[in-house]
Amino acid sequence: MIQTLWLIGIGTGAPSHVTGEGMAALRDAAIILVPHKGDGKDDLAELRHRIIRASGSDARILPFDYPERDPGVPYLERVEKWHDEIARRWQKTVGTIHPDGPVALLVWGDPSLYDSTIRIAQRLEPQPDIRIVPGITAIQALTAAHAIPLNAVNGPVHITTGRRLRDSGWPDGVQRVVVMLDGDASFQTLPAANLTIWWGAYLGMPEQVLDHGPVAAIRDRIIATRAAARQRHGWIMDTYLLSKET
Amino acid sequence: MIQTLWLIGIGTGAPSHVTGEGMAALRDAAIILVPHKGDGKDDLAELRHRIIRASGSDARILPFDYPERDPGVPYLERVEKWHDEIARRWQKTVGTIHPDGPVALLVWGDPSLYDSTIRIAQRLEPQPDIRIVPGITAIQALTAAHAIPLNAVNGPVHITTGRRLRDSGWPDGVQRVVVMLDGDASFQTLPAANLTIWWGAYLGMPEQVLDHGPVAAIRDRIIATRAAARQRHGWIMDTYLLSKET
Ligand SMILES: C[S@@+](CC[C@H](N)C(=O)[O-])C[C@H]1O[C@@H](n2cnc3c(N)ncnc32)[C@H](O)[C@@H]1O
Ligand SMILES: C[S@@+](CC[C@H](N)C(=O)[O-])C[C@H]1O[C@@H](n2cnc3c(N)ncnc32)[C@H](O)[C@@H]1O
Repeated sequence: MIQTLWLIGIGTGAPSHVTGEGMAALRDAAIILVPHKGDGKDDLAELRHRIIRASGSDARILPFDYPERDPGVPYLERVEKWHDEIARRWQKTVGTIHPDGPVALLVWGDPSLYDSTIRIAQRLEPQPDIRIVPGITAIQALTAAHAIPLNAVNGPVHITTGRRLRDSGWPDGVQRVVVMLDGDASFQTLPAANLTIWWGAYLGMPEQVLDHGPVAAIRDRIIATRAAARQRHGWIMDTYLLSKET
Repeated sequence: MIQTLWLIGIGTGAPSHVTGEGMAALRDAAIILVPHKGDGKDDLAELRHRIIRASGSDARILPFDYPERDPGVPYLERVEKWHDEIARRWQKTVGTIHPDGPVALLVWGDPSLYDSTIRIAQRLEPQPDIRIVPGITAIQALTAAHAIPLNAVNGPVHITTGRRLRDSGWPDGVQRVVVMLDGDASFQTLPAANLTIWWGAYLGMPEQVLDHGPVAAIRDRIIATRAAARQRHGWIMDTYLLSKET
């Protein structure tokens, strides 16, 4: 039974992104649940194991499988059912073990940013004690790699998804927009004039690739780089910051 | 002379926020510039020294003083001049030393978020190689402490300052707003209906204090807690997330 659950942010691909708190939490965990993703991202599974080894943890590692999503169900209901099923699988994987310490999960980036692990954890019955260990996000990995500030001086920043950028266009009242979860290089749907992009893929990883410049000038180059990298690795994760000069 | 400059994000008050990369960078630095703040936040100066000691660094520690800001000059010009003067002081502090390794600065939170260190570094003449080491931001410290997601499912997030919230009100088109750099509990200027707040001060530090609930119900309690804490410690740093139910 899961009585205490720790969700540990591990950063975005560099084992050195893990904080001292994250390393200590891995060491203090009794059980670590690790997904069997089977999504072709084997490098990412290996990274989790490397981080666990580097922490010196002797926790019991229990693998679990993600369920399939049922395509016959409307989106929001499908996500809810999927989360319920994942919570059940965590519970079932721990099963009748009475761990003499916390159960832990490694969460990509920071657990609070575009990640469902906290929502899944909240569905566990009975509700365990939940602790979140913050981690470096793809946003910070992006700005660090480019050595740029996220915001203009005291200016606001808007964080959104590729889908929203495509569907709703440039958000009102902001000069800086960060885009995540974008499978389609959605910046290409915006009017490019006065728009600058700082783009990064595989941030923090040996494969890291960066580009930046006026969207009008480098749009096609990023689209080509992106397609070639996705082809080569079988997957891609990218994030970018857009700035609109006024 | 500063030929290589590393800006190392240290998180928001817990030495355990520092990443493996941050600790290694402190160890590899030849010189670490540390401000003599004299602003009554002695706990923060002590924290920097604790982190440096914990890293095992044997870098030379060089203190520097922040200049006064000239109140006679308009805001933007004043900030520019102030940044120029800080860059000069870094350069002067290193002076004629030819460090056999990088010069480093510890930066609160993440160097990219509402911090001027990168902009100051860009004013150094000649321009050194700049490396940024990402750090945990107050935003992640806040959501971790409350064990909450930052965004609604796939929803956008707007990050802004207290001043902007006061001057411009609720930003268009978003349900979630993070507010930083707010000396005046500016959430009290918003219509409170349907607004929920997750508030945190001294995040990551022993003094950490949290509150959350409907703004209408807990507004006065937060204002009182905030005033009492500021009085007791002589300073306060707080951050909050607002969510508007529609
Ligand atoms: C499901 S979200 C998880 C975000 C994560 N929790 C964080 O804090 O960064 C996945 C998205 O994060 C971004 N991302 C995560 N890791 C990345 C990396 N190493 N390089 C570039 N983008 C990354 C991409 O936009 C990707 O679509
Ligand atoms: C100059 S900004 C620096 C932000 C920092 N670079 C970061 O990444 O969090 C200072 C503001 O950050 C927030 N902040 C920083 N540290 C904090 C802490 N320990 N607790 C609460 N808020 C904090 C407050 O809103 C404060 O006004």
